[in-house]
Amino acid sequence: MFYIIGLGLCDEKDITLRGLEAVKSSSRVYLEAYTSILMVQKDRLESFYGKELIIADRDMVESESGSDGILKDADKEDVSLLVVGDPFGATTHTDILLRARNLGIPTRVIHNASIMNAVGASGLQLYNFGQTVSLVFFTETWKPDSFYDRIKENADGGLHTLVLLDIKVKEQSEENLARGRKIYEPPRYMTVPQAVSQLLEIESLRGEGVLDPEKTLAVAVGRVGGFDSERILAGPLSSFLRVNPSEFGPPLHSLVIVGKRLHHLEVEYGEMFAEKLGEAVSLAGLDTEAVSEETRQSGRREGRERWRKVAREVYSVALD
Amino acid sequence: MFYIIGLGLCDEKDITLRGLEAVKSSSRVYLEAYTSILMVQKDRLESFYGKELIIADRDMVESESGSDGILKDADKEDVSLLVVGDPFGATTHTDILLRARNLGIPTRVIHNASIMNAVGASGLQLYNFGQTVSLVFFTETWKPDSFYDRIKENADGGLHTLVLLDIKVKEQSEENLARGRKIYEPPRYMTVPQAVSQLLEIESLRGEGVLDPEKTLAVAVGRVGGFDSERILAGPLSSFLRVNPSEFGPPLHSLVIVGKRLHHLEVEYGEMFAEKLGEAVSLAGLDTEAVSEETRQSGRREGRERWRKVAREVYSVALD
Repeated sequence: MFYIIGLGLCDEKDITLRGLEAVKSSSRVYLEAYTSILMVQKDRLESFYGKELIIADRDMVESESGSDGILKDADKEDVSLLVVGDPFGATTHTDILLRARNLGIPTRVIHNASIMNAVGASGLQLYNFGQTVSLVFFTETWKPDSFYDRIKENADGGLHTLVLLDIKVKEQSEENLARGRKIYEPPRYMTVPQAVSQLLEIESLRGEGVLDPEKTLAVAVGRVGGFDSERILAGPLSSFLRVNPSEFGPPLHSLVIVGKRLHHLEVEYGEMFAEKLGEAVSLAGLDTEAVSEETRQSGRREGRERWRKVAREVYSVALD
Repeated sequence: MFYIIGLGLCDEKDITLRGLEAVKSSSRVYLEAYTSILMVQKDRLESFYGKELIIADRDMVESESGSDGILKDADKEDVSLLVVGDPFGATTHTDILLRARNLGIPTRVIHNASIMNAVGASGLQLYNFGQTVSLVFFTETWKPDSFYDRIKENADGGLHTLVLLDIKVKEQSEENLARGRKIYEPPRYMTVPQAVSQLLEIESLRGEGVLDPEKTLAVAVGRVGGFDSERILAGPLSSFLRVNPSEFGPPLHSLVIVGKRLHHLEVEYGEMFAEKLGEAVSLAGLDTEAVSEETRQSGRREGRERWRKVAREVYSVALD
């Protein structure tokens, strides 16, 4: 049997019991590289499972020769591939499943949480999300903006948009690439302020009024599902530009652009996240050790008030 | 600590290790009624956890007095509420979380898979889903059709629509309701053929050409994530009307209306599901025991060909 097992969102304890059973029964267990780099440490998983893990990078999973290596003997013994989130989450694994089926290998998918449903932790109703978009790192010469049309389509229908922020893993510098040296740059993760400034850059180029620094609300979710490290912040886009990127905590981060079909319960639930963003704004540029509780409190209050004001005046949500 | 724990999609082994730890540490564990009725048996969970479970129906979870009972002493000890899927899935639990926070009770959410992301098992890309809709049981006099506008909005953008099918749990007959007798009807689950015929009924009333029996493709997913009982069938809407409802297996079922932004890999992955629907069509009205393998095979072939034909001719997907 070939298993693809979702590891869930954060660490080794997010696997399901069914997933753990499959790992234990497998003679080979592959760990998709994204997973190991982003969320959990390979050695931590290995000691937890009492099993050696084989790193599989995306090329390996997606190429025919690579996937044939993974699938070898899976008709006779159990083989598992561990992936971050859910196997059908932001990156899908239909290629290798199709390949397995064409080889006559039985397959099973073990589901788990992924950002596509856990973003509900923002308090925004999953019902009211439109299509999901990805935002890649801009360069001087390459600023793909098709996400803008999709956010606009969602916004026209009043819907929220989940924006997945770019990750660069196993990148080579131009020089190393040219010389064929397999030396990779350190992984890079787009931060929330970077994402917001890219969004606003495209708005200023396109000028269709989809995104407005003061009038568009957003919710940033960092390490959603992380027991101690989850960080959710909410407010108008401009506020996200005013805080230190470290306020969002370690990767991964995503951003939700709030649609006009915003409900008063979503506003109410988001108030605590708006307070956190307000507090972060109040700390910006200061020595956080020296900041008084009073400053933090007034930051929280201002954050909440900004959130409610835009919800009421721009989104026309009836609040008490 | 107050925990809300997603149980995932099917049985007691779909809980995460983190979730199981929280259950074990809790002095009281509530099981949301939907959960126990739909997916897993309460006694099966109890023997698995070695713990008694308290049934909490939706009224209890959603009312202030009910939720206060659940939250009692959760500032001093651990209390868990188990829910099907993810805590922020199709039904959300923001009310009780807000209530807990207002009472100064620390809360943690333990995520899991839900239909909102596991529908990726259909092979349709989650990126290309628009807003999700719910379809309720029609009566003679009540046929709410707002879902139609939402499917249309998605379809106009080329997007897939996840349609959640109605469940009736703890319903009272009019007579029992009038007499105040707490006698409940057996639970009812909308079947896929029922759903399709309701969709087409509204299409015939509205006539905006959003749904066409022969030209609109759909994928039905039954018990997604169920190890032995998952059932995924794909084809034009009309085919779903030609099969016995039992072909879809036990509840829960959902339906995806396929959008025009269909990708050739989605078509390819869906072929095996189209074969299953074709086979089910070939069996309709026959004594399945007596059906020859040849009949089944030709059913599968016809199912695959119907799927590919509509994908090519109506959805303009380039296939070999």
